[in-house]
Parts: sequence; structure tokens; C-alpha cells
Amino acid sequence: VRTGVWLVGARGSVAVSSLVGALAVRASLAEPVGCVTELPALRSPAVPGLSDLTFGGHDVAVLRLVKKAEALAAGGVLPPPIVGLVAAELAEVESALRPAPTGRTQAEAAHRTIADLTEFRHDHRLDEVVVVNVSSTEPAAVAHGAHADLAALQAALETTETVLPASSLYAYAAFSAGCGYVEFTPSTGPRLPALAQLAEQAGVTYAGCDGKTGETLLKSVLAPMFAMRNLRVQSWSGINLLGGGDGANLVQPGSNAAKVASKQRLLQEVLGYQPEGNTRIDYVPDIGDLKTAWDLVTFSGFLGTRMRLEFTWHGCDSALAAPLVLDLARLTAAAHAAGARGPIPELGFFFKDPLGPGPHALADQWTRLCDLVAGWGAADALGA
Amino acid sequence: VRTGVWLVGARGSVAVSSLVGALAVRASLAEPVGCVTELPALRSPAVPGLSDLTFGGHDVAVLRLVKKAEALAAGGVLPPPIVGLVAAELAEVESALRPAPTGRTQAEAAHRTIADLTEFRHDHRLDEVVVVNVSSTEPAAVAHGAHADLAALQAALETTETVLPASSLYAYAAFSAGCGYVEFTPSTGPRLPALAQLAEQAGVTYAGCDGKTGETLLKSVLAPMFAMRNLRVQSWSGINLLGGGDGANLVQPGSNAAKVASKQRLLQEVLGYQPEGNTRIDYVPDIGDLKTAWDLVTFSGFLGTRMRLEFTWHGCDSALAAPLVLDLARLTAAAHAAGARGPIPELGFFFKDPLGPGPHALADQWTRLCDLVAGWGAADALGA
Amino acid sequence: VRTGVWLVGARGSVAVSSLVGALAVRASLAEPVGCVTELPALRSPAVPGLSDLTFGGHDVAVLRLVKKAEALAAGGVLPPPIVGLVAAELAEVESALRPAPTGRTQAEAAHRTIADLTEFRHDHRLDEVVVVNVSSTEPAAVAHGAHADLAALQAALETTETVLPASSLYAYAAFSAGCGYVEFTPSTGPRLPALAQLAEQAGVTYAGCDGKTGETLLKSVLAPMFAMRNLRVQSWSGINLLGGGDGANLVQPGSNAAKVASKQRLLQEVLGYQPEGNTRIDYVPDIGDLKTAWDLVTFSGFLGTRMRLEFTWHGCDSALAAPLVLDLARLTAAAHAAGARGPIPELGFFFKDPLGPGPHALADQWTRLCDLVAGWGAADALGA
Amino acid sequence: VRTGVWLVGARGSVAVSSLVGALAVRASLAEPVGCVTELPALRSPAVPGLSDLTFGGHDVAVLRLVKKAEALAAGGVLPPPIVGLVAAELAEVESALRPAPTGRTQAEAAHRTIADLTEFRHDHRLDEVVVVNVSSTEPAAVAHGAHADLAALQAALETTETVLPASSLYAYAAFSAGCGYVEFTPSTGPRLPALAQLAEQAGVTYAGCDGKTGETLLKSVLAPMFAMRNLRVQSWSGINLLGGGDGANLVQPGSNAAKVASKQRLLQEVLGYQPEGNTRIDYVPDIGDLKTAWDLVTFSGFLGTRMRLEFTWHGCDSALAAPLVLDLARLTAAAHAAGARGPIPELGFFFKDPLGPGPHALADQWTRLCDLVAGWGAADALGA
Repeated sequence: VRTGVWLVGARGSVAVSSLVGALAVRASLAEPVGCVTELPALRSPAVPGLSDLTFGGHDVAVLRLVKKAEALAAGGVLPPPIVGLVAAELAEVESALRPAPTGRTQAEAAHRTIADLTEFRHDHRLDEVVVVNVSSTEPAAVAHGAHADLAALQAALETTETVLPASSLYAYAAFSAGCGYVEFTPSTGPRLPALAQLAEQAGVTYAGCDGKTGETLLKSVLAPMFAMRNLRVQSWSGINLLGGGDGANLVQPGSNAAKVASKQRLLQEVLGYQPEGNTRIDYVPDIGDLKTAWDLVTFSGFLGTRMRLEFTWHGCDSALAAPLVLDLARLTAAAHAAGARGPIPELGFFFKDPLGPGPHALADQWTRLCDLVAGWGAADALGA
Repeated sequence: VRTGVWLVGARGSVAVSSLVGALAVRASLAEPVGCVTELPALRSPAVPGLSDLTFGGHDVAVLRLVKKAEALAAGGVLPPPIVGLVAAELAEVESALRPAPTGRTQAEAAHRTIADLTEFRHDHRLDEVVVVNVSSTEPAAVAHGAHADLAALQAALETTETVLPASSLYAYAAFSAGCGYVEFTPSTGPRLPALAQLAEQAGVTYAGCDGKTGETLLKSVLAPMFAMRNLRVQSWSGINLLGGGDGANLVQPGSNAAKVASKQRLLQEVLGYQPEGNTRIDYVPDIGDLKTAWDLVTFSGFLGTRMRLEFTWHGCDSALAAPLVLDLARLTAAAHAAGARGPIPELGFFFKDPLGPGPHALADQWTRLCDLVAGWGAADALGA
Repeated sequence: VRTGVWLVGARGSVAVSSLVGALAVRASLAEPVGCVTELPALRSPAVPGLSDLTFGGHDVAVLRLVKKAEALAAGGVLPPPIVGLVAAELAEVESALRPAPTGRTQAEAAHRTIADLTEFRHDHRLDEVVVVNVSSTEPAAVAHGAHADLAALQAALETTETVLPASSLYAYAAFSAGCGYVEFTPSTGPRLPALAQLAEQAGVTYAGCDGKTGETLLKSVLAPMFAMRNLRVQSWSGINLLGGGDGANLVQPGSNAAKVASKQRLLQEVLGYQPEGNTRIDYVPDIGDLKTAWDLVTFSGFLGTRMRLEFTWHGCDSALAAPLVLDLARLTAAAHAAGARGPIPELGFFFKDPLGPGPHALADQWTRLCDLVAGWGAADALGA
Repeated sequence: VRTGVWLVGARGSVAVSSLVGALAVRASLAEPVGCVTELPALRSPAVPGLSDLTFGGHDVAVLRLVKKAEALAAGGVLPPPIVGLVAAELAEVESALRPAPTGRTQAEAAHRTIADLTEFRHDHRLDEVVVVNVSSTEPAAVAHGAHADLAALQAALETTETVLPASSLYAYAAFSAGCGYVEFTPSTGPRLPALAQLAEQAGVTYAGCDGKTGETLLKSVLAPMFAMRNLRVQSWSGINLLGGGDGANLVQPGSNAAKVASKQRLLQEVLGYQPEGNTRIDYVPDIGDLKTAWDLVTFSGFLGTRMRLEFTWHGCDSALAAPLVLDLARLTAAAHAAGARGPIPELGFFFKDPLGPGPHALADQWTRLCDLVAGWGAADALGA
């Protein structure tokens, strides 16, 4: 299955890390560490291989991919020798990138996006195309009456109003072009009734939201631990210190609130009650791409004894997110090829704020993911 | 099902915390926080309730239970008001305790233990009796030829030699008396071929070893997290600072080595490779019952990016262990009543070093435990 | 020197901890751990002893001291047996407490406060009286033209306007009654030009502001360490989780901002530049009186190598503040007796935001404090 | 003052970091971050500048300096561009390095060392030469009767016995050649009565032992904080995880014990009592040069309230040590030029285990250091 991966925010840290990594692993320059679909439990002929992927994308930025990769290497996010070795392949991807389309109306911008996607699919003779949003987090979206209904939405897009946030306009265009969509950021993306209608009409699949790469990943194994041991979590407080581009964006109060809310939902879901405490996000430029999260959990045990758990996570967001972007593109394409339509709740394993119903404990999400892929394998075996 | 719980080390911190807790929950003075069998997923008519339990036990110590409970309350392990409210019930348990039996030969000591257990069963008209070892950790046992065969063992026990470590002699006596056995410490207990033979002959069940209450509990959810995300754990190092009686015992090099080894095995099992690093145990009397464990995990992600996780766990071992002692007695009795014989690998959820084959990831152990209990429920439903 | 200590907020956690501690140490029931004036380097005949102190105070709360002490004991802040043993002495202090005075105008409230202080001094034949503010933190004060000049202030206080925040009105009354004043909170207190004039006229001394008990105490030794080693602090970020009454108060944005600003000033003073980063304060009721502060310091060394320091402080604010309240009352009284007038910058050792010029590194503050007390000793020796 | 710096272990991580740094700062390619002698408080015409230094040294290793520097750059300890820019200057230092001398007797080895030092001094027309030992830590030295007396030592060195550990043989040679000596490692070095006699005869100065770069540096500010606040430190426990060459060496039990002992002495000295707890050292190769130290301090305050401080230090030992090596060479040369003879206790600021009497609190050590340098300044001013 020839699969196209269209990156929105293609010149950003996450996208470029995904590209360099995919090219390096393809060339046997690196092992696919961090790629979930490369684990034995998820290996399946139904999932396109890394070498089946073709990349393209949009960005408002203009810095060349090789230059961005070199900057990431200087910052310790990518290994300098590998960047050098994949420079030629990066330049090839460069030629498939397009400037982010704009228009007098949002409909016009959408049509240009659709045209780019269609051209990409045609030029590279792709069987499946998946759009992955890895651009910066948007401020919380402003509600609009046209969000509830597809026809109303289509009419509103023809006006000069800003009806949809950028992420949702991308989902709109992706669906209209028959492409899958993955919302890797906490932005609204496909989470509007009108877009659900469109996805259904177009027979496409989508997944989201907000890649789970750090503190929430830990919460998704630690909160179930407390639950399985019947220990009472009294409070869960934390702070995230970010220095990268995402951090700069998150100091804008609207974005911050969106991200914090998605981080707190898991505890209620897993524990069945909401402990005290908040998660703060602070921007500290000096920290760079190596995010630091500190959490304090206070809990009580038998007869009320008070205990504590503290953890500190020093994780490189780009390095953690990049392989998941590849996993999600591959799995979304495979799901569509296997007949899936609409949201794919079985991909909740990857997200802070999963679409659709489903468990929040990582191990349960893992089981669901394995079952999904196993289902394809069986189908494949039957077909053979 | 009237169930007897015979505690070896009945006057120690863990045993007394279990007793005070069981009595307090029974009297609705406290909620069963920390009791896994009280979770909805494990509630079953096949599992004896807390009010179906009768307690007895052995100890070489002579401090009265109420005095020990008051000492634990003064140290912050138990809530002082509750100790006062269950004092009368504790005094009743007191009357069922016996001094730890001794003898000229180990056979003689075993026979006295068997007599105590038989009298306990008879006096209280118990349907099931489970012996739970919560005494201090023994030094690593010395191998002996007679460990491999029951007949040889029985002959050797008649000599004046010390053939079995104390924990194994208890398992021998428990099995001979038709009782279940739970090895809650890292000591040898039932882990000898001769004892497996005896358990089979006697038609009894057993479980172990080494209650999972702190650092290893965390490892059993964090190591699978790294595995599921295909992240490479480079090193996992840690230190445990203990101040309680267990700590004093563990500074003896033999005991320490036994405990450390059981802590490291999990990583190999879950990850499929052994990362660098050791776990140290230090005795710091001032820390008292509130154990502190610090771990540093270094791991690498996509393209080799280096990242770190650190955690500190401040847990009260007695408060964490006590409800599990009750859970294990209840589940072991229920398993036997449901027809189980020999080791119960489905109880691996509770142990650092589980007997028999089985997963080491906590979520998988949980699933197995739920399936075990669900099986009984179905049987129960069929019988009705 | 018979010394009166008048506590504003006398029924709060800090005040009651000070009272119980002073009474317990006086009765040889406890050692003066945490009392700086009991260290050999600061022992001086010029400093009144704990048994020279007489206590009184104001509070808007009405909970009896013994009841408050029992509540603190139940929360683990005070040892229950000691509270029982000093109950009679606490009841005696109780009789010297007065309800917080109010009035139609602030002048009227001040006159009632002055009357209470004068009566206290007279009834107990006190040589020195020091008012210590340990009430809750106020929101940042609203500027008022009359703050700049004493005559204008006295005129304005006669109107029905709220001219002074409560802490400053207390300082006004204290100075007018010839008493010393210690601002132990971050509130405005004596930091107004009109009050400086009044203190000069009245010939009294004062000290402040904001007792240094946790994170800032650590900063005052760690920041100098980086400075002395010529290491460059790139960022210093932190979060304070508070559960006690002070925490509830600090979630009000005004108070929070005041406290945070005083915490950040030290770094600029010690390092000579302001590193990146913020200090957050969050209210987590479950944490109770045991405050948790976590800080991350990123710094660079030779040739720019990046390094990190993290610390977590679990401190009981009342237990840390209470002995300092006694120290400050004793030292302020001694300073006045030794002829000091106006602010006492040598007491900067005790404060987050010291009045007057002076070093911010703890060791330098310590040296100044020792010199101050040594100066009195010499005077005393000369006088003898 | 033309000053020679002779590095024992000249091809190791610390030495090469010192060399690259000195050359880079000299060429204005980097700022002297981490160099204590570059702070305003210590700037003095009496202290030789970085450009007054000439380097030489011994090593048993043969890896070229440029290659070692490149390896350090690849490991993140040195910045790759700077290594490239000072390659020519490094090659020049290369030509001043000599293989570590050996001999049939230790006397013979010493004479060859003396010859190398004398040639170095003569070739470069140096006014002062300081030998700095930055080689690997030795196992604890074996006592020998000849250590107590110079004449006996000189006789014993003529035999084929191993009388002195390598570090002490270097001190012997340095003193004999009229050079100063700095013991930067925990090895024995000059700490033998016979060597003190020799230093006196030769009129040379020396300093040591064991550069204070991480956990002990923190202890030297945190322990005084507890002392100044009269808080009782109950326990101080810690673990050091090291991955560099020093770590590999320290797993040898003898070396480890030496280092641990020097780490624990400070607490007794500063606090006046020895708290519970140990410091462990573990070798974890994956951690590389970025050492991680974790410490837990439990302490009690007023009325016995229990509190805790935890810290984690992620420090690059080479980056922390390298500028101090330069500082110590410069200060030792200046001290000698200013007339100092024998040990220089005023350099205790730099060491875990300072020679001679003196304070262990960092701030007090700093004051002594400033006074030392100020004394030279005055002399200089007088001379002018």
C-alpha cells in the first residue's frame, strides 16, 4: 500500500524529526526505537512499512528542511551525523512541500489545500493519504453555529468570516480530498459535528487528539496502579516546564487552558473521582526541547496512612512525538484500507484526549490497539 | 466459608496492621482502602468476606498485640483512635496466638506447629486455614540434598541438623496440616521441590513470594510503559532507605542480596533485556516505617535521544502490605475451595517474585487475577 | 528585661505553635530546636530569655488556644503529649488575648489597639513590648497619598476611609504605643514613609518582612554557591504546594503576586542578573501544613556545559516559623534596649524581603546577625 | 609571573577539559565561566593570568590530546566547534607531554620525574611550576613505616619495594624539584609526614585533597543552613551514579571507601554531630560523564516536627573540575610567590577533604580565600 503522509507544520521540530527518523531507519542508519508499530505485537502485513511512505506537507515557515534539521542537531534533538547522511533525501521531500494555502474566504483556502492533496496523491500514485497536524497548538476555538451542521458550515465558509480554526479547516480539506486525518495537537481539528458528517459522507477515517508523550503517558500507567491497588489518590499536582516552540505558544492563556484540561480528564476517568490539584505549564526558554515535568501525588492507604509519590520526567518532546507521528499515519492508512470509517477509538493509546469512547489506562489501550491490528492480520490471512 | 488466617510473625508490624485494619473495617470504623478484593472487579461470593476471617498465629516475640498496635500508632503507622476502639477484639486474637514452636529436631518443631494449626481449625470450626508468613526476611537459604525429594526431606528432618530455613519448615507444617500457605517475604518458604511434592500429596494451594508494595510495584507499571512505547531503557538504578525492623534485618548481606535479586528480575522479564544499574538497600533507623525509594531511569528514544525519569516513593510498608495479607488469605482460601491445588500463579499481581509462569506487567497480572475470580463466580452461578 | 510579645493573629497556627513551644521549652519539656537565639554564637545576656517573655495578642478568630493546639496536634504539627502538658499555661495566655479592635474610623481602631498594648505593658510591668504580625497575608495594598507623610496620615485616619491595610494600622498603633514591631508576613506593615517618620518620633525599632522558612531559605544558600563558583544560573523555576490556611489565602491573586515577587528578588541581588523562570504557588488542601516546594535550576559551567539541580522541600511552615517568631521578638526587644531605633537591617537573616540595605546570602546575613549580638555583649561587658 | 602547570593524568577527561578551556578562554572563544579566580572578589595582580600559564604533563595513556578532546566533544562534555578551533594550540601542548616515568626502584622513577619537571621549567623559563594530580583515584594506600620520616623514606625508595602510592611519589618528585603540588583526587598525595618534612626543606607549597565538584559542594552550603537555623539533621543519605572513567575506578572497593569517607566527614565538622546515613557510589556506564547524585535529608524542627529535603544534582564532573584545576594552579603559584610554604589551608574552598585546619562551610571557606588573595593585593600595592 503506497501511503502518503501530509504534514501540516512540515517545517516544525516534530515533523522534521519524523522525516529525518523515517529516512534514517529506511536507510538502516538507525533502529526504529520509539516506533510502536515496529514491535512484534503490532507487526502486520496490513500496516504499510516505513519504505511505503511518501512525505509532503504545508507550512507557513520557509526555513529549509535541512537547515531545520541542522538546528535540531545543534540543539541535541537529532544526531548530527545522521542529519548529514539523509540530506539528499530531505531535499527530495523539500520538493513535495507547499506553502500553507490562504484565500479570500476559508472555502478558497480549503480548495487550494484540496488541490495540493490531490496533486500529491496523483503525482506519487498513492493508495492512501493521511494528513497529520503537527503545527503549533491553537488557542481554544470560538464556537460558531455552523459547526453543528455540514451544509451550514459549507455556506459559512464561503463568507469572509473566520468560521473554522486552522486545524479544523485542514480536517475539512483532508476529508473533502478523501484523506485520513490525525490531530496530533490539542487543537480542535476534526472534533466538530459538521466534520463528523463530512467524514462519514467521504468515507474517511480520523484519529486524535493530542499526542501523549510525557506527563500524561506516566499518568496513564500510574493512575491505574493506584486504582488496581485500591489506594486513594488525594491530590495530583504538577508543573511542566517547556522551552521549545510549543512552550512559547502555550504561555498564551487560551492554549494553556486547553492543554491543561486534557491533562486532568484522565484522572477522573481512571480513578472514578477527581483528586485535588492542578497541572501548570510554564515557558522557560533555556530548557529548550528537553521538557521537564514534576508531579506530586499524595495518596492514602489502609486506615488512612498518608504516602507520597514524586516523579520528574526529562523528555525530549520531538523525539517522543516523531515516531508516533509515523505510527499514526501508518495505522490510520491501514485502518482505512481495512474498511474503517469515521473516528478510530482503538488509537486512544497514542493520545492525551482520545476521540470516542475507550479506556484511559495505557495497558487497556494497548490491548485494544493489538486487537485492532490482529483483526487486520486475520482478514489478510483469510484473503490470501 | 469460615476461614482461618494463621500469621507467622503475628506480633510484627505487618501482622498487627492487618489485624487492626481487619477489625476496624469489620466494625465499620474504616473503609477497606488498599484491599484489592474489595474492588468491584474482584467482588465475588466465592471470596470469604472480612467477617468470615478468624485470626491466630505464632511469634517468637512476646509484646502484646495492643501494645504493639499502640507503638505503631505512636509512630504514625496506625491512627491512635482506631487502636483504642479495637482493643477488645485485639485481646481476643491475642488468646489465639501461640509461642513459635521449637523442638530437638525440625520434625518435632513441625509436629508442634501442625498441632497448633489443627487445634486452631478445630476450635474455630474453620473450613479453610491459610498460613501467611509475615516474619522477618531470612538470609539466603543453604542448599541441602534433601530439598529435592520429600522422602529424603522427611528423613533429614528427624536428625538434629537444620535442614530447612524457618519459612520452609512452616510451609512443610502448613501443607502437612492441610492448610494453604502464602509466602509474603522474600524467604524460601515453599520454593523447594520436596515441598511441591508435599503440597500435591496434601491437595493444598500456596502463593508467593515477597509482597510487592513499593519500588517493584512502580517498576511493574513503568517498565511495561517503556516496552509498549518501544523506548530503550539504558539503565535503571535505585536506592531504598528503610528504617523499620525489616531494614535492620536487611543490612545483613545475605538477606539484602536475596531481596535485591528479586527486584532486578522483573526488568529482564518485561523488557526482554537487562538494563544497567543496581538497586541498593540501606538501613536508616530515623526514617522509621516510612520507606523512601529513589530510582533513576535513563532511556533513549527515536534516533538515540537521551531522556530520564526519576521517582521518589515515600510509602509506609506496613500500611501497604497489611491489606494485601488479608487479600491473599482470602483469595488463597477461595482458590482452594474452588478446587485449586499447588501454586496459584494467578496471584502474581501481589508479588515481587511470583511463583510459576506468568506476566510481570501489573496490568497483565491484574487481568489474570480478574479472570481467576470471575471463573469462581461463574462456577458459583452454575451451582446455584 | 521583662519582655512582652503581642501576637497579631494570636489564634493562628504559627502563633499557637510559638506559644506551645515557648511554654514547653520553658518547662524543659522540649529542646529549643529551631531557635536561632539559643545557638552558642548568639547567646548573650543582652537577649531576653524565653522565661522573660510574657504573651498577649489580638485575633478576629475566637477558637480557644487549647482547642487550636489540639487541632494542630491532630494534624501532626505539634506533639499531642506536650499540648496536654502546657494546657494550663496556655489558658493563662488565653486571658491576655483580646478581640481584634475595630472602630468607626481607623484612628478609633488604632486607639483601641494602643489601649490594649498599654494595658498589657502596665499589667505585666514589661520593660519592652514587641508586636509581631503573624496573621494571614493581605492582598497587595492600594497606594494612598497619605502614606507618604505622617501628618497627612493622621488626618486621613480620622475619616471613614480605609487608608491603611490592617498590618500597617497595627504598625501605626504599635509605634504610637512605644512598642517594637515585627512584620512576619509579606503584608505591607511598617513599609510606608509615614510610618518610618512615626517610628523615628517614637524612638522604636522594627523588623521585616516575610519570615524565610522554606524555598527562599534554600535559595539564600544555593544561589550564593553558584555565585561563588562562578557558575551561570540560566533558569530557576519552582512550584510551592500549600495546604494550610496560608495556602487558601494565597490563591487570591493579589496575595500570590506579592509573595512571588519577594521570592524572585533574591536571585537578582545575589547573582547580579535575573535568570529565567517563575515561582508558582498552588493551594492543595490535602497537603495540610506540610508544604512541598520543588525547584529546578538549570546552569552552565566551563565552556557552556549544561547541568541541573532539582530539590524538593517538605517543610512544616508552622514548625519552621514558630521559633523564629520567638527569636525576632527577643532580638527586637534587645536591639531597642541596646539603643537601636528605626529598622534593624541586621535581622535580614530571618526574612525573605529584608528591610533596609544588606546582603541576601544567608551566610553573610548570619555574620551580620552575629556581629549585632556581639556588639551588645561588648556593651554589656563594658557596663558591668 | 610565568607559571608552569604540570598535569599528572594529562590525557584524562579533567586535564583535557582544563586545557581546551584555558586555550579557548585565552583566545576569547569562551568566557571563563566556572573559574573562581576570574570573579571580581578574587581578581588580583598577584595571581597569574590564564595567558601566563604553560602546560605540560605525564600520562600512562597515549591517546593524542586532540583525539581525546574530540571524544569529549562527542560525549557532550566539550563543544565541538571550540575543539576544532584550539586544535593547533593543543598540538603544541602535546609536544610538552611526557610518558609517565617508571624505574627499577621508586627512587629511579622519581628522579626521572624530577628531570622532566626541571627540563619543563628550564625550557619554558618558568618562574613557578605547579604539579596537579588529576589522574584516577587510587585504592586506599597501605601504611608503611617509612612514611613517617623523610630520611627513612629516601632510603626505602632505593629498594625495589613499592613504598609510596603513585600520587605520593609524584608529590615527592614535585617537592624535590621545587614545584608546588595540588592533590585534586582523593588519593594520598602529599598527606604523609615525610612529605611534609620534604616540602618544608624544599620551601614549596601544596594544596588538597579531592576537588569539591558535586554532592559535597551542596553539602557545604546546606549543612551550614541547617546549623545556622538550629534545625536537627537526623539523617543524610545519598547515592552517586557515575558513568565516566572515575566511576569505573571507584567500583573497586578500596577507592570507593576512600571517597565515601571524605564525603561524610563534612557533616560532623559543620553540624557538630554525625547524622545517620551513608553515601553510596555506583558505576552506571550509560550515564557517561553526567554524574547524578541524589540525597535525602531528614531533619526535625521545633517540638520535633519531622521534615525532609531531597535533591538531585546532574553535574558534569569534568566541566566542574576543569576550571578549578586552573584556579588551583594559579593560586598555588601565587601563594608560593607571595612567600607561602607548606600546606595552604586557605584553599579549603576547593576541596572535599581540605588539608590543615579550617572551616567546612563554603561561605566561611570563601571568606578565607578572599582574605588570602586580598593579602597579596595589599603586598603588591605596597611594593608598587
